[in-house]
Amino acid sequence: MREFLYGHWAVLESLRAGRREADQLLLSEGIDERSKSVAEIISVCEQRQIPVKRVQRRILDDIARGGNHQGTALRVGEYPYVDYLAMIEKATERREKPFFLLLDLLKDPQNVGSLIRVADAVGVHGVILQDRRGVGVTPSVVNASSGAVEHLQVAQVTNLVNTMKDLKKHDIWLVGLELGEDVPPLSNSTLDMALGLVVGSEGEGMRRLVRETCDMLVMLPMRGHVGSLNAATAGAVALYSAWQARQWEGWQGARQGGR
Amino acid sequence: MREFLYGHWAVLESLRAGRREADQLLLSEGIDERSKSVAEIISVCEQRQIPVKRVQRRILDDIARGGNHQGTALRVGEYPYVDYLAMIEKATERREKPFFLLLDLLKDPQNVGSLIRVADAVGVHGVILQDRRGVGVTPSVVNASSGAVEHLQVAQVTNLVNTMKDLKKHDIWLVGLELGEDVPPLSNSTLDMALGLVVGSEGEGMRRLVRETCDMLVMLPMRGHVGSLNAATAGAVALYSAWQARQWEGWQGARQGGR
Repeated sequence: MREFLYGHWAVLESLRAGRREADQLLLSEGIDERSKSVAEIISVCEQRQIPVKRVQRRILDDIARGGNHQGTALRVGEYPYVDYLAMIEKATERREKPFFLLLDLLKDPQNVGSLIRVADAVGVHGVILQDRRGVGVTPSVVNASSGAVEHLQVAQVTNLVNTMKDLKKHDIWLVGLELGEDVPPLSNSTLDMALGLVVGSEGEGMRRLVRETCDMLVMLPMRGHVGSLNAATAGAVALYSAWQARQWEGWQGARQGGR
Repeated sequence: MREFLYGHWAVLESLRAGRREADQLLLSEGIDERSKSVAEIISVCEQRQIPVKRVQRRILDDIARGGNHQGTALRVGEYPYVDYLAMIEKATERREKPFFLLLDLLKDPQNVGSLIRVADAVGVHGVILQDRRGVGVTPSVVNASSGAVEHLQVAQVTNLVNTMKDLKKHDIWLVGLELGEDVPPLSNSTLDMALGLVVGSEGEGMRRLVRETCDMLVMLPMRGHVGSLNAATAGAVALYSAWQARQWEGWQGARQGGR
C-alpha cells in the first residue's frame, strides 16, 4: 500500500532515513523551490531519480486532509514497523540499558507525533503501540513528529499486556505514568533502570489490565487550578526525567563531560 | 473592550476565576446542554444572571475563527493583566521562593497557551510577556491553556530586558532556556532558587539582549535525528524540572509526605 507523507520535515526526514521506497514527489505550484528545505528535498529526489511533479495546491489540500502540507508531499511505501525484540537488540548493540516508550491506545495523531518526536530526542530504542483502536504511524503522525518517526523503531502489537509480560522476562521495568493521586510522584531515582515508560490515552489513561501489569506507577504532580495536563506534555516531562536519570546517556555533550 | 472566549474549559475557568466581567453566553444550537461541562456553564451563568443566547453554529465559527469552540462562547471584559511586582508579593504571601516564567516574543498562541497551562500546573507565581510583536492573552491563548490563564497572574511589559534587570534587584535568578550546545544541560541543582525561567521564540530563541541579561543559560540535551523540540515542550520539561528541584513545593501530596 502506498501513502503520501506531507510537510517539509516529514518528507525530508523520510528521504534522509531512506527506510521506505519513495516513487513520487508532489510540489504545489507557487511554492518557493529555492527555500532551504524544499531545495534539499528536490535535490535528494533528483539524486535518487524520484520523479518530481508540480500540481495544483488543492490536490495537496486533499491529500493532507486539512493538515499543514507546506506544498510538499511524497508518495512512499508502508511504514516499516519492527519487532520489539529488535529494539532490545538495538539497546544491547549500543551497550545501553533498554529505554522504551509504550503507548496504550492514544487517539490524537498530534499527541502521538509529539511524543514520538520527544522519544527520538531522548534516544529511546523504540516505541511500542497497541495496534487496534489506537493511532498507528499515519501520515499525520509522521507530520506531527516532524519526521522523527521515520528514523525511530516502532512496533505495533496486537496485545500490549502480553508484550509487557515479555518485556518483563527481559528484565525491563515497566513504569506507568498516571495523573491520579494515589501513586508516588515522578522521581529520577526510579527511572534509572532498563525502562519501559507506559503512557495511557488522553482522558482515560491506561486500561486497567495495562495498569495492573506495570511494575510501578508514578504520577506527575499538579498544583494549579486546571486539573489535567495534555498526555503529550506529561509524557515529554517523564521521558526527559528518565533520560536525565541516565545522566544524558548517549548525548554528544555528555561524552565531552557535559560542557 | 469586549471579546469572546470560546471552548468549554476556557469559558468555565473564566467563570470560575471570576476576574473578568461576563455579560453574555452564546450556545450553538444543537449542542448537548446536559453534558457535564455545558450544564455547569449554564448553571453558573444563571446564578450570576448572565444572559444565555442560542445562536447558529456559524456565528460561533466566525467568533472562534476556526478554533475549537465546542459550541460555547462567553463575552467578557479585557484580560486582567497585573504588575509583575504583584507576583513577587504573591510569592512572599505564600512563603515560597519566587518562580516566574518569562516569554520572549513567542508567536504561536498554541505554544503560549500550552506553556501557561503547564506554568499553572507547577504553581508559578506569574508569567511575564513582552508585549509588542509577541502574543498576548488572546482568546486563542485562553483556549489553548484550557482556561488556566484565567487563574494565573500575567504581566505584559514593554521592555523585557528592563523588567529582567528589575527582577535581579529582587534577587531573582534568571535562567534562559537554550537549544544550543555551548551551555550546560538542564540540571535540577541550578533551578532550586528564586527563579525566572526565560523561554525564547519558536525557531529564533531569545533575542540577543535578553540572552545576555540572563544570569545563566541552560539547554535541553537532544540526541535524536531531528534537531529541535517544540518551544512549548522544551519549556514544559524545564518548568517541571524546576518544580521537582523545589521538591514539589505547594503540592497537596508533598505536604502529606509525598504519598
